Amino acid sequence: MNNNSISPTKPRRLKDVHQWDKTTEIAIIGYGGAGACAAITAREAGADVIIFELASAGGGSTALSSAEIYLGGNGGTRVQKACGHEDSTVDMFNYLKLCAGEQGDVEKIKIYCDESVGHFNWLCEKGVTFKDSELKDRAIVATTDDGLLYTGNEQAWPFKEIAKPAPRGHNLYVKGDNGGPLLMKILMGNVARLSIPVEYDSRALTLIQDDEKEVHGIVIRQDGQECNIRASKGVILCAGGFVMNQDMLKRYAPQLSRCNSPIGNPGDDGAGILMGMGAGGAAINMHEGLTTLPFYPPASLTFGIFVNASGQRFINEDCYHSRVGNFCLRQPEDKIYLVFSIDDTSKLEEASFLSAEIAGTGESIEELEEELALPRSALVQSLAFYNEYAAQGEDPKFHKSAEWLKPIKGPYAALDCTPGRGAMYAMFTLGGLDTLPTGEVLTSKREIIKGLYAAGRTTAGVPRRGDGYASGISIGDATFFGRMAGKTAANS
Amino acid sequence: MNNNSISPTKPRRLKDVHQWDKTTEIAIIGYGGAGACAAITAREAGADVIIFELASAGGGSTALSSAEIYLGGNGGTRVQKACGHEDSTVDMFNYLKLCAGEQGDVEKIKIYCDESVGHFNWLCEKGVTFKDSELKDRAIVATTDDGLLYTGNEQAWPFKEIAKPAPRGHNLYVKGDNGGPLLMKILMGNVARLSIPVEYDSRALTLIQDDEKEVHGIVIRQDGQECNIRASKGVILCAGGFVMNQDMLKRYAPQLSRCNSPIGNPGDDGAGILMGMGAGGAAINMHEGLTTLPFYPPASLTFGIFVNASGQRFINEDCYHSRVGNFCLRQPEDKIYLVFSIDDTSKLEEASFLSAEIAGTGESIEELEEELALPRSALVQSLAFYNEYAAQGEDPKFHKSAEWLKPIKGPYAALDCTPGRGAMYAMFTLGGLDTLPTGEVLTSKREIIKGLYAAGRTTAGVPRRGDGYASGISIGDATFFGRMAGKTAANS
Repeated sequence: MNNNSISPTKPRRLKDVHQWDKTTEIAIIGYGGAGACAAITAREAGADVIIFELASAGGGSTALSSAEIYLGGNGGTRVQKACGHEDSTVDMFNYLKLCAGEQGDVEKIKIYCDESVGHFNWLCEKGVTFKDSELKDRAIVATTDDGLLYTGNEQAWPFKEIAKPAPRGHNLYVKGDNGGPLLMKILMGNVARLSIPVEYDSRALTLIQDDEKEVHGIVIRQDGQECNIRASKGVILCAGGFVMNQDMLKRYAPQLSRCNSPIGNPGDDGAGILMGMGAGGAAINMHEGLTTLPFYPPASLTFGIFVNASGQRFINEDCYHSRVGNFCLRQPEDKIYLVFSIDDTSKLEEASFLSAEIAGTGESIEELEEELALPRSALVQSLAFYNEYAAQGEDPKFHKSAEWLKPIKGPYAALDCTPGRGAMYAMFTLGGLDTLPTGEVLTSKREIIKGLYAAGRTTAGVPRRGDGYASGISIGDATFFGRMAGKTAANS
Repeated sequence: MNNNSISPTKPRRLKDVHQWDKTTEIAIIGYGGAGACAAITAREAGADVIIFELASAGGGSTALSSAEIYLGGNGGTRVQKACGHEDSTVDMFNYLKLCAGEQGDVEKIKIYCDESVGHFNWLCEKGVTFKDSELKDRAIVATTDDGLLYTGNEQAWPFKEIAKPAPRGHNLYVKGDNGGPLLMKILMGNVARLSIPVEYDSRALTLIQDDEKEVHGIVIRQDGQECNIRASKGVILCAGGFVMNQDMLKRYAPQLSRCNSPIGNPGDDGAGILMGMGAGGAAINMHEGLTTLPFYPPASLTFGIFVNASGQRFINEDCYHSRVGNFCLRQPEDKIYLVFSIDDTSKLEEASFLSAEIAGTGESIEELEEELALPRSALVQSLAFYNEYAAQGEDPKFHKSAEWLKPIKGPYAALDCTPGRGAMYAMFTLGGLDTLPTGEVLTSKREIIKGLYAAGRTTAGVPRRGDGYASGISIGDATFFGRMAGKTAANS
């Protein structure tokens, strides 16, 4: 490597630091949800903290999100209880464990569930408000000010088989899809109240490490100058994921390249993950991401069926849009259609997120099948099977809930949800640094790197798979484990 | 991290080396196919080389393999030509590119194809012999001494659509499944001929690196003693993959845990990858592996159909067993049956690898469907559709070749290929260090780490996915890129 270049993959050696430009106890890199919560918690625990933010303002990707914070268990949050949902920690744990699949971090899921109501209460103490009301629509985001909604696969097979469903998406008390900006405004108000210094336009370049791999600070570029920042209790990387880094996406999560709409802010360039890796941290789960196909609202499209190039169904359509999108992307051939009865589309214009074209219509299913160029009688057969059972409220092949089952009758139409043909496939990354629940960054042998912490999408957290994603779980994870990292660093 | 422990994730600092116990130009870690070829090439280029091997004998996982080396293009190898197969470099490239999918390393695939016949000739020069004859059976491994066979998906859809098929598996001139031991015997004979020292029972512990991340040597444990080995031209990691490291598998390739039969030797413990990561190297493609369901021979089972819990087909059954296995593992529910006509099972006892139980039999398909507890009429419908088209030599849903299409007639039987119920799902890892085709190890920003090289399954090479695996591609990749690394290091 070039001796003179400064690269996140090459930490500055402590002995090469001849002067500290600034000294604090905890340096926090990134001012989104994770960074803000880490800062508040560390400061309240008595530590000196500085936040360094790449952009000219705080917020990060949290401020861009809907911030439907995923919380529950412990008998239920105040909002869950008010809306008549008793929620057990065991159900929440079993649900999230199935969501994360084989790559789940059971320790993180456990503590997240155990302390979830505590986190709800902490957020409320900090000034976050939730209305004690439930939005009962099948929605992608809450545009009402209701405090609670289903944001995952809780009511869908196979999740409902292993855990009693409860809505856990907690939506801030604000009209429209404005939870993220409000959440960050409230958290940033707390940062200001605690007089925590925030330095903007500050790009973190690389960590400062001694020969034993302990982290002592970080190099920050401000006004074109490199500054050595000493952080005597540690550095907390809260610098987002890597969805905006084309090179990292290509190398680490190539299958996400089939999506057409990255979700994130320009700072999600992977710098936090790269710096952590450069310091010896292990990045795990790097191939996974949230992918999503927002095919509802209108919820009535859930009465339709998704078919692939074989004219076969492949999923229970009442799953959350993220799981459906993931299954679509995984079909071996490039043809995905959502087939439905025109009767169910009175509100089709509501499908404003999806941007899918009508691929075909037909008075008869044979006509539609031909128009879609599916194998002759394949769709006819799939529909006949589906309709026969749907009439009895059953879906023996894919277990869609009876609520969404009725025979699909002509005239028919199909939306083209084939990846690459215009339908919106959004995505962000779910891989990052391997950390303990405390926020301590681990090597590939799971040794702790002293003085280095991380939280939010810079880490591999509670959410691990698009197949089991629930909206609000990233913000929940980022804010909760941001607090954990802040506390651990402050007490170190 | 503990100051006193020696860990692959913490390279020894050059300045902490007070004495060199041994000095060479190139230290090669691991004496399998990659290490042997790296050593031979480096020595022939004039470099001093020492091979350090963990075990008490050489061979590595190459010696455990069938060693059907995947080679072709350039008009064809001698064997391909003799068997009447003209093979173009473009076809081989297009084929391997589709095999590797979005995560493919185009540079590696290109040079591998361009120089593939050269590699065949090199192997022949070193004493490897291939008979100019083709085995035409649909086989998992060649048990005859024929020199050539199909070992991938070349003749199956969609591969046959983008590249003219040619058999590229080159089987050594030896009876039985004995290619791997013979290949290693020949390569080790060359190592001996060149008087390259090999030190056995030598465990590599960690790399020796300076503050600029250049690698200067490696710490080896021999007879309980740590030895500092100076390697003035570099260290080449040829230490295998991580299929035998449960902890790494769980963290990096959790989905492989559904397989029940790891392929490899105890040295495939990931140590090479961990040392490379510890020195700042990036590990990529870590979630991928070869998985395989060896459902043939007898080839006649290819006339059958695989169905999942929905009673639906999901693949063209004439694909290579590895692709079929991967698709089986990916089905959302845990039921996989291979349904066939009892008429096609006169040789069922030949299916010695598969170890699958008979899940059900039936005079009629309705009877079998019920016995398999599939949704009523689902299998009946799938078979009716299949048979109708098969009678015409067509498979519009999955594109199985006409050669393997005929209506399936009763009495019927089904083999239980459900993962976890006894059928053999074998696997090894396809993730590892990111390297240039030259063997130079790269950081996560793709900077070259001076003095560090890698080859074989310690790297992410030409094969990247179980979906597109071909037998012989790992041995081909390991031996070819072993040579490349040896040459680059020798000329450094």
